[in-house]
Amino acid sequence: MTPQADLLITGSHLLPGARQSELREDHGIAVAGDTIIAIGPTADLVAAHPRAQRLHTAHGLIMPGLINTHTHAAMSCFRGIADDLPLMTWLQEYIFPLERRLTPEIVYHSTLLSLAEMIKSGTTSFCDMYLFAKDVARAAEQSGLRAWIGEVLYDFPSPSYGPVEAGHSYVEEMFRHYRHHPLVSVAVMPHSVYTCSPDLLRRLAETARRENAILHIHLSENAAEVATCRERYGATPTRHLDELGVLGDNTLAAHCVVLDEDDINLLAARRVKVCHCVESNLKLASGIAPVVRMIERGVTVSLGTDGSASNNNVDMFGEMNCVAKVHKVERMDPTAMNAESTLEAATAGGAKALGMEERIGSLAVGRKADVIVIDLDQPHLIPLYNVPSHLVYAARGGDVVHSVINGRIVMRDRRLLTIDEHEVMAAMRTISAGFRPLPGRR
Amino acid sequence: MTPQADLLITGSHLLPGARQSELREDHGIAVAGDTIIAIGPTADLVAAHPRAQRLHTAHGLIMPGLINTHTHAAMSCFRGIADDLPLMTWLQEYIFPLERRLTPEIVYHSTLLSLAEMIKSGTTSFCDMYLFAKDVARAAEQSGLRAWIGEVLYDFPSPSYGPVEAGHSYVEEMFRHYRHHPLVSVAVMPHSVYTCSPDLLRRLAETARRENAILHIHLSENAAEVATCRERYGATPTRHLDELGVLGDNTLAAHCVVLDEDDINLLAARRVKVCHCVESNLKLASGIAPVVRMIERGVTVSLGTDGSASNNNVDMFGEMNCVAKVHKVERMDPTAMNAESTLEAATAGGAKALGMEERIGSLAVGRKADVIVIDLDQPHLIPLYNVPSHLVYAARGGDVVHSVINGRIVMRDRRLLTIDEHEVMAAMRTISAGFRPLPGRR
Repeated sequence: MTPQADLLITGSHLLPGARQSELREDHGIAVAGDTIIAIGPTADLVAAHPRAQRLHTAHGLIMPGLINTHTHAAMSCFRGIADDLPLMTWLQEYIFPLERRLTPEIVYHSTLLSLAEMIKSGTTSFCDMYLFAKDVARAAEQSGLRAWIGEVLYDFPSPSYGPVEAGHSYVEEMFRHYRHHPLVSVAVMPHSVYTCSPDLLRRLAETARRENAILHIHLSENAAEVATCRERYGATPTRHLDELGVLGDNTLAAHCVVLDEDDINLLAARRVKVCHCVESNLKLASGIAPVVRMIERGVTVSLGTDGSASNNNVDMFGEMNCVAKVHKVERMDPTAMNAESTLEAATAGGAKALGMEERIGSLAVGRKADVIVIDLDQPHLIPLYNVPSHLVYAARGGDVVHSVINGRIVMRDRRLLTIDEHEVMAAMRTISAGFRPLPGRR
Repeated sequence: MTPQADLLITGSHLLPGARQSELREDHGIAVAGDTIIAIGPTADLVAAHPRAQRLHTAHGLIMPGLINTHTHAAMSCFRGIADDLPLMTWLQEYIFPLERRLTPEIVYHSTLLSLAEMIKSGTTSFCDMYLFAKDVARAAEQSGLRAWIGEVLYDFPSPSYGPVEAGHSYVEEMFRHYRHHPLVSVAVMPHSVYTCSPDLLRRLAETARRENAILHIHLSENAAEVATCRERYGATPTRHLDELGVLGDNTLAAHCVVLDEDDINLLAARRVKVCHCVESNLKLASGIAPVVRMIERGVTVSLGTDGSASNNNVDMFGEMNCVAKVHKVERMDPTAMNAESTLEAATAGGAKALGMEERIGSLAVGRKADVIVIDLDQPHLIPLYNVPSHLVYAARGGDVVHSVINGRIVMRDRRLLTIDEHEVMAAMRTISAGFRPLPGRR
């Protein structure tokens, strides 16, 4: 007997992956528990699953949720506090002094605000590196998002856990707590080669192997990082990590802006996954990552927004729009990073980056039901010749009307069902008042 | 006696120009007819104008409408029809064959669709170059937008007016018809130096001088245009136009991507206004216009979306976001094109480009009431430290809730009052069906 679905998600169009050739009209998906159990014409699904809850959108496009592989969600509390500044001024005069004022409660509320924004702009999975990661995870659990979360570690004392030895214990506690959680995975997150000693990096790589976890790190974000690493260790950041035995197919490296050909070949050989954060890299004037060349060499590229202090939002539609355009001019080739490649990076690429290519990132029977619905009945999304083109070049985060994660409806008609949006906005107004007077304003 | 206002627009914040230092809380503006007659604390305005209609938004930011100085609005009917292609393939295999199928009715409906999108994303003024300009103007009149409209002229026969001599008559008829229109201005629009003979350019410059009108032209869009012009006339496009006596303070030049130092100095000396179309220039891999250098030399820079076949939307918020980020990496300087400079280009810069710096582009007593209201009560716009930063780096077109143009409410709570959105979307679905099968698909 056919299993009965709990939920039918139907609309005018269904795009199960990133290719226009896969587009189906009047199709939908049937969900039982957390899993997609059928994809087919709406009429057939309705006939086969008469008792299922319906989530129908007349001009709705059903598609995989977007995957944001590099965030610092709690930095929403610093959105717009300091822009258009040289990196060192921004960090040392604003961000670092502000971060010393963070508390677990501030991180919890600030993360929740970003997660509300993520859901409302189509993200269903995210990978977050920050301080007070237990509180990040607490917000993630509440939100219903699929999450990879890690406490950022470095040599110096942290505003969160204190001395680095306590950091290792903090991470181990997180692994114990979330080992069997359906949505929250813990990851190992050394900050970077310039803030972590070789010993720390080696030890964390060992932790990641033992826990079978993702190791997430900032890598080659700008020229200064590469120069520092060369001076200190006589190698580029990529080669330095490789010499320490850190690079592997569980490594997710954010940024990868300043790479030479040997670095790219090494990332490909070690099957390292890359998170491309184009808007942050532009805004901080770090440069443009060689994404086209990495993809040519077979490197998995995913997309990330970085934190809202350097973007200043977590909208993956904006990120896709920028990715598809910037690489065309960087290569002086209008065929570079076409709409389908860009959408793939934001969906299947993210799934591969997180070791979940069999479970999320596209819609297919047996996969997790991480699904968003876009309202196509809007002036900026008409006419409709090509759906990946619309998603990358015309759509905005605000066009997402419903979001289903792991089979659970987390947003319906743009109303969040897991987060009290007004409560979290009120909390943030109070938090931000506490940051005044702002540092750096003299 | 104080004149009575017809309309009070009030909210939590008022940003009359592009600078954070101008921000006022709990202020609003009073409008009589088409003009702003007072700006002040909400309580004072309400007391002074008890009978005025109220347009109040609890968490509303009141600001000047955005000005889009280069569009081909009717190209909305080609949105997403052909992307990620080399320029000549795109033009010759898709756009030109499709444009031969245009009719006045298609242009009218397609323009109206773009104007709906413009209003819904905060644009209150636009400058449009296209075919069948009388029908563009018909749509503009209906929409209530402030418009500069011109029929594009070139040496070869046009799908609109036929031979070029008929084009001159077409333009003259438009000048006669719209001479005293409060919102529609006619402009003279030679296509480019590579499609217009020196004689045609000289004659159109003379028409613009006689009519005291804007002359709008594509200029130095890419390297191929510059090479062609050098080969044909022994000069860059900028110097070629100057030798023909075309450049003046009524010239609005779109793109200006490939310029040398002499070109920039010449544009500054002739007080030419530039429209920067960053998203189109990236998407077609034309390059990045030297906007920072132009501004340093005193050139007025405004922003434009170009048409929806090369963008693929007319959302000026997306344009601002891209402008502020791209120039930072192009200069490797995170202070380049800061939020205030970018917002200024989209408001006061546009007003200057259109010769309206005393009337639009900022909110002040005596100016035209071209005003938009942003809903700040959303997760991605909280907290609020700096309003220009939010508008450029975090906001999206969909955040605009009300639009007032020339004192008339054209959108209220995101509902359009001058355009039947569903009718225009239905018309576009029919039009786009007529373009199938698409050209170029073999």
